[in-house]
Amino acid sequence: MPYQFSGKTSQKFPIPKTMKAWVLGDPDNLSLVDKKVEMPNKAEVLVKIDAVAICATDLDVISHGPPAMIEGGLPFNKNFTPGHEYMGTVVALGPAVDEFQIGDRVTVEIHSGCGQCKRCRMGMYTSCHNYGEVNKGHRANGFTTDGGFKQYAVNNINTLIKVPDDMSDEEATLVVTAGTTMYGLTELGGLIAGESVVVIGPGPIGLLGVAVAKALGAGPVILIGTRDSRLEIGKKLGADYTLNVKNETDVVKAVKDIVGTKGTDYVVECAGTEQALNDAIMMTNRGGKICLAAFPHKPISINIPHMVINNIYMYGIRGEGKSATHRAMEFMKQKRFDASLVHTHTFNLDELPKALKYARERIDNAIKIVIKPWS
Amino acid sequence: MPYQFSGKTSQKFPIPKTMKAWVLGDPDNLSLVDKKVEMPNKAEVLVKIDAVAICATDLDVISHGPPAMIEGGLPFNKNFTPGHEYMGTVVALGPAVDEFQIGDRVTVEIHSGCGQCKRCRMGMYTSCHNYGEVNKGHRANGFTTDGGFKQYAVNNINTLIKVPDDMSDEEATLVVTAGTTMYGLTELGGLIAGESVVVIGPGPIGLLGVAVAKALGAGPVILIGTRDSRLEIGKKLGADYTLNVKNETDVVKAVKDIVGTKGTDYVVECAGTEQALNDAIMMTNRGGKICLAAFPHKPISINIPHMVINNIYMYGIRGEGKSATHRAMEFMKQKRFDASLVHTHTFNLDELPKALKYARERIDNAIKIVIKPWS
Amino acid sequence: MPYQFSGKTSQKFPIPKTMKAWVLGDPDNLSLVDKKVEMPNKAEVLVKIDAVAICATDLDVISHGPPAMIEGGLPFNKNFTPGHEYMGTVVALGPAVDEFQIGDRVTVEIHSGCGQCKRCRMGMYTSCHNYGEVNKGHRANGFTTDGGFKQYAVNNINTLIKVPDDMSDEEATLVVTAGTTMYGLTELGGLIAGESVVVIGPGPIGLLGVAVAKALGAGPVILIGTRDSRLEIGKKLGADYTLNVKNETDVVKAVKDIVGTKGTDYVVECAGTEQALNDAIMMTNRGGKICLAAFPHKPISINIPHMVINNIYMYGIRGEGKSATHRAMEFMKQKRFDASLVHTHTFNLDELPKALKYARERIDNAIKIVIKPWS
Amino acid sequence: MPYQFSGKTSQKFPIPKTMKAWVLGDPDNLSLVDKKVEMPNKAEVLVKIDAVAICATDLDVISHGPPAMIEGGLPFNKNFTPGHEYMGTVVALGPAVDEFQIGDRVTVEIHSGCGQCKRCRMGMYTSCHNYGEVNKGHRANGFTTDGGFKQYAVNNINTLIKVPDDMSDEEATLVVTAGTTMYGLTELGGLIAGESVVVIGPGPIGLLGVAVAKALGAGPVILIGTRDSRLEIGKKLGADYTLNVKNETDVVKAVKDIVGTKGTDYVVECAGTEQALNDAIMMTNRGGKICLAAFPHKPISINIPHMVINNIYMYGIRGEGKSATHRAMEFMKQKRFDASLVHTHTFNLDELPKALKYARERIDNAIKIVIKPWS
Repeated sequence: MPYQFSGKTSQKFPIPKTMKAWVLGDPDNLSLVDKKVEMPNKAEVLVKIDAVAICATDLDVISHGPPAMIEGGLPFNKNFTPGHEYMGTVVALGPAVDEFQIGDRVTVEIHSGCGQCKRCRMGMYTSCHNYGEVNKGHRANGFTTDGGFKQYAVNNINTLIKVPDDMSDEEATLVVTAGTTMYGLTELGGLIAGESVVVIGPGPIGLLGVAVAKALGAGPVILIGTRDSRLEIGKKLGADYTLNVKNETDVVKAVKDIVGTKGTDYVVECAGTEQALNDAIMMTNRGGKICLAAFPHKPISINIPHMVINNIYMYGIRGEGKSATHRAMEFMKQKRFDASLVHTHTFNLDELPKALKYARERIDNAIKIVIKPWS
Repeated sequence: MPYQFSGKTSQKFPIPKTMKAWVLGDPDNLSLVDKKVEMPNKAEVLVKIDAVAICATDLDVISHGPPAMIEGGLPFNKNFTPGHEYMGTVVALGPAVDEFQIGDRVTVEIHSGCGQCKRCRMGMYTSCHNYGEVNKGHRANGFTTDGGFKQYAVNNINTLIKVPDDMSDEEATLVVTAGTTMYGLTELGGLIAGESVVVIGPGPIGLLGVAVAKALGAGPVILIGTRDSRLEIGKKLGADYTLNVKNETDVVKAVKDIVGTKGTDYVVECAGTEQALNDAIMMTNRGGKICLAAFPHKPISINIPHMVINNIYMYGIRGEGKSATHRAMEFMKQKRFDASLVHTHTFNLDELPKALKYARERIDNAIKIVIKPWS
Repeated sequence: MPYQFSGKTSQKFPIPKTMKAWVLGDPDNLSLVDKKVEMPNKAEVLVKIDAVAICATDLDVISHGPPAMIEGGLPFNKNFTPGHEYMGTVVALGPAVDEFQIGDRVTVEIHSGCGQCKRCRMGMYTSCHNYGEVNKGHRANGFTTDGGFKQYAVNNINTLIKVPDDMSDEEATLVVTAGTTMYGLTELGGLIAGESVVVIGPGPIGLLGVAVAKALGAGPVILIGTRDSRLEIGKKLGADYTLNVKNETDVVKAVKDIVGTKGTDYVVECAGTEQALNDAIMMTNRGGKICLAAFPHKPISINIPHMVINNIYMYGIRGEGKSATHRAMEFMKQKRFDASLVHTHTFNLDELPKALKYARERIDNAIKIVIKPWS
Repeated sequence: MPYQFSGKTSQKFPIPKTMKAWVLGDPDNLSLVDKKVEMPNKAEVLVKIDAVAICATDLDVISHGPPAMIEGGLPFNKNFTPGHEYMGTVVALGPAVDEFQIGDRVTVEIHSGCGQCKRCRMGMYTSCHNYGEVNKGHRANGFTTDGGFKQYAVNNINTLIKVPDDMSDEEATLVVTAGTTMYGLTELGGLIAGESVVVIGPGPIGLLGVAVAKALGAGPVILIGTRDSRLEIGKKLGADYTLNVKNETDVVKAVKDIVGTKGTDYVVECAGTEQALNDAIMMTNRGGKICLAAFPHKPISINIPHMVINNIYMYGIRGEGKSATHRAMEFMKQKRFDASLVHTHTFNLDELPKALKYARERIDNAIKIVIKPWS
């Protein structure tokens, strides 16, 4: 028995039967097809996608399949649409939805937990114990369920954050990235005003990690990387100090020269290399905390003895849990930092392959690339 | 100008000028000498030591010097007395001390923080940022300051826990061990009733880890080890299941057969090997937590990707912070578990070298060995 | 279009079309009628109710209407079935439910949050911001949606806790009461081993509050009341001390004589009177915490100046949030306390009016009265 | 035997034997006398006071004696110097102090806990269980020990916060006030970016409460008061909305018109009246939190039933615990708000009586009045 739509639409936003959508047939094999536009059910809305950014994990997903498929051994879904950093306009409401109105501009976080497992009931919906189980209500846009390289998407209202009028579509796509670092800093303790934070790796997460740490009052905030152009952006986003590891013989010592010999209170590690991880351990003070925000691809040898002797905490985070996107959005709304500094390029929906190439090869100093599905 | 004692003593406990004490001249070179009995200052008492247990870290300290000396590069203190798990009787009070009375039986936790640094002000005195700095008030008995293989010791009142009348001297020495696991479980989250806990490594910390986890209401509690005799003691201390890795082809699977395919909520890792640490990571569920309670001696290759994808938290703990010994003592006082099950041997103070040999070589199935300084 | 059941049933548990159910026509006007048996939807099961206990709030609901109706101004629902402390057997599964099997014995907590609001996403589903809004998925059995004085009930799997084989139906109905006190103690801090807890008011919540506090390792636990028979039960449930206010000229002083002049760490206030509340404030130590577990019916004059000067925390709790029932059940499963000590009477479903009279007038020293719907 | 100073001084800052100091002979009876300049002991420094602000509690202390004396029944200390919001220059170091250098500009928080009690060991030193016991090391400047209406003061290094070069003396005195609100917001939860905060009462604490809430990312922030001039300052400090209760028939409704019908997430209550407290309760959403930052002088009748039904948390705070002053200073250093907006008048040390009159009678719209001891 087919689902009968009993929600709300508006003549202002007529909804077509089909839309343009990219699908991943096989690894690295994308094609632009026509897909049916689904309608929202209870606690859901339909979003007309106005912009979607490319994340490094999109490149991974497109080359290897989504993480859930790798670990869980799911077969490749030949009709799967990747892309998870999108925003748009609400154009239809599921039954009983009054949290949003048609016409609202919204940006979308990735994970909608099952709502029943122990982690969801703790607010840790990014660690939902029914990850990947669609029939239990779990969705991870662009990972286990269809993502945003298309024109319309149904989303649980849990995943929506309102976008203020004066924020551009492009900037709004960055809320998930900022929210991920906010989640990391939340798990690190949350109360970081006046505490020292080192961010290793000036990719989008690292750069917005600097911005969010500074917005929360951290001080000093130190950014470590290998490319001066990125470090410069870090300064604009609030880094009190930057260190280019190419110029430093001992980056741990360089950090301690700034924060004192005890070491730093927090590290947000966004590089994912053995060197970076062990530097992080060695520069953290007794009782300090390290957030692992990068996805390394293989086991890494780390200085566990130093971690134990110094009571160091290490957290793996995935995504943007504990409503951190809402906190990140508030800071962006209040103009505490200019996330659009990490946005470098914009392409049309049919240019996705070219856009992915720019992202993968960092052509023209690409950092964040945004796709506009309606241009 | 010498310190003039202005506290309180009692005729009931006459205090000699000197006492018998073991000192560590060079690595593995212990001798029994006469030492001056110091008197307590503000916020301190003098404890007549009635029993002191041998810990694995004592063996390390005696062979290599205390950790502070290793990491901090301090020279060997030729007059240093090791030993940190002791209990005894209060025989003199420093000025203004009214928290304890002469005659009170007390057991002693290791760390007395400086009280001024950021960690001490958060209750994390085991991670004191002035670790090892005696002139700032930091003391770690048997690590950076004189320990308990002697007859009398001055202790900060912060480090004392009252011993109930019906608890033996031997059992009371185990409060620090139980408190260390309590601290680990506290840092893991504290609210573990009804949650699954795996303990890897049935040494004294692991065995009392089982006992404390069970006392807190954890369930199921699973103990993993290699020797059936130790696993049997674990069962008596509350383990719902034991797994001998010698009989298991896949210990991660064996744990999941018990707790379900999602994995366990918590692991207390007390083995310190690469295999154990990676097993811990693979058996922990999304959003679950691992406490590192063993001191491995070198870097270890661990499955960081799995940690990040699964939002796993890993904590290095050292010692017994956040007043965990007090919570452990309460459970022991209420007879929730019989810590004395891990006590196997007792020796006199002048038999320390023999006792250390028993501990090191696990002669006669030795687990916890206790020294009685006055026999 | 009517809902088409697409879940699972079993021949072992045939499900009738109708059942016997009490409904509340007007205040204090109950009648036993035939009601349709509903079938479970996604994330729901059908429970055949085997036992349901009477709570003091049931008496309130029956006399005045549910709290949501009072505050929210909802009209009286003439077909409403009260009763919220029930347990039973799973007899049908909604689609995709595999967390439970047909035949499982379960006990049921009251609140199923909407899963979308900010409180639900923090685990505070008892404070759901869509309280009472059934079309958003909120249910509070026996308050805003049909309760348990009937033979069958549909329940969200979020609200179910498995009952061990060796626990009686009657004891299993007490898990919500124990879970409420567990939630209170969780909000008070959670880590209470070795800390002092005073419980004021030995009703069912107070008595199980004593039991849960003791199971968590609190010490000493002091119970204050007016009836020696209840205080005696408190002792059996773990109270280290009881105080009958009829015999005490100064109950605050009496508490301090036990815990020391600084006062107690925690108070669980279950009496709801002005005197009790102010006693609670005066007996709590600096930085201590008070849980308000009683529902007083009017504003109360309290010593705010003392609260502020002493940095006292006061929490109103409602019901059993943060999965506290699961933690309570674990302690009951481990036989840490005998909740059945508060169960005094059992009646058949058609004897509900008589049972309510016993509960209201405490006839024959009634504490917890249980209804068996199938006898 | 007198204490022999064994610390460090500098010729740059010669220290006189005596200084000018105000003492409180009897209630409201202040006189300017010569007092001996004490020298710092272990973990202490001597501060040459450059500025000290007048707080409303100073007026209370001068009229009635310090709170400790009121509650604890201590006799009036005829040589007591009030004043607790001071800053200055470090001019002598106690033995082993290297956390500060001579010449450092510092501002001073009030409370130095005993460091031994359970609260101090949790970081709650403002709730020290040895409050007022000087021989156990507790000090509350201007409450239980000598305060700052004088020229020099010995302070524990725990109480010092470094002042950046570009911050005026006057602004630096406001760190304790900002830190008190920061502590309140910390106890309310800490993570308030994007959450709604209502501040009732635009005195110095309320005004800086607005500033700190906004700096932490709260939104919207609503300030409620009776005087438009104060509300205007609130707007400059970050209030998104102000409500003058004189213009509002229903302030609870007015708040809900802004934040939505569920009510606000947090209230910082700085008025201390029955009306304000009950408004706070009625405007807070389910699971929301209220911080009591005012010191009312008598018991108040409050809507406890509404608190319980709505799971509302109410915290009494006193002063500036959990190192909140350090977090407040960081925001002030980063120029997130201009605390000097609440500074209205400056007087010389010998003008203290006139300054107190201005403060008490709010002459010339006085808010914060600062005394300069060396003019």
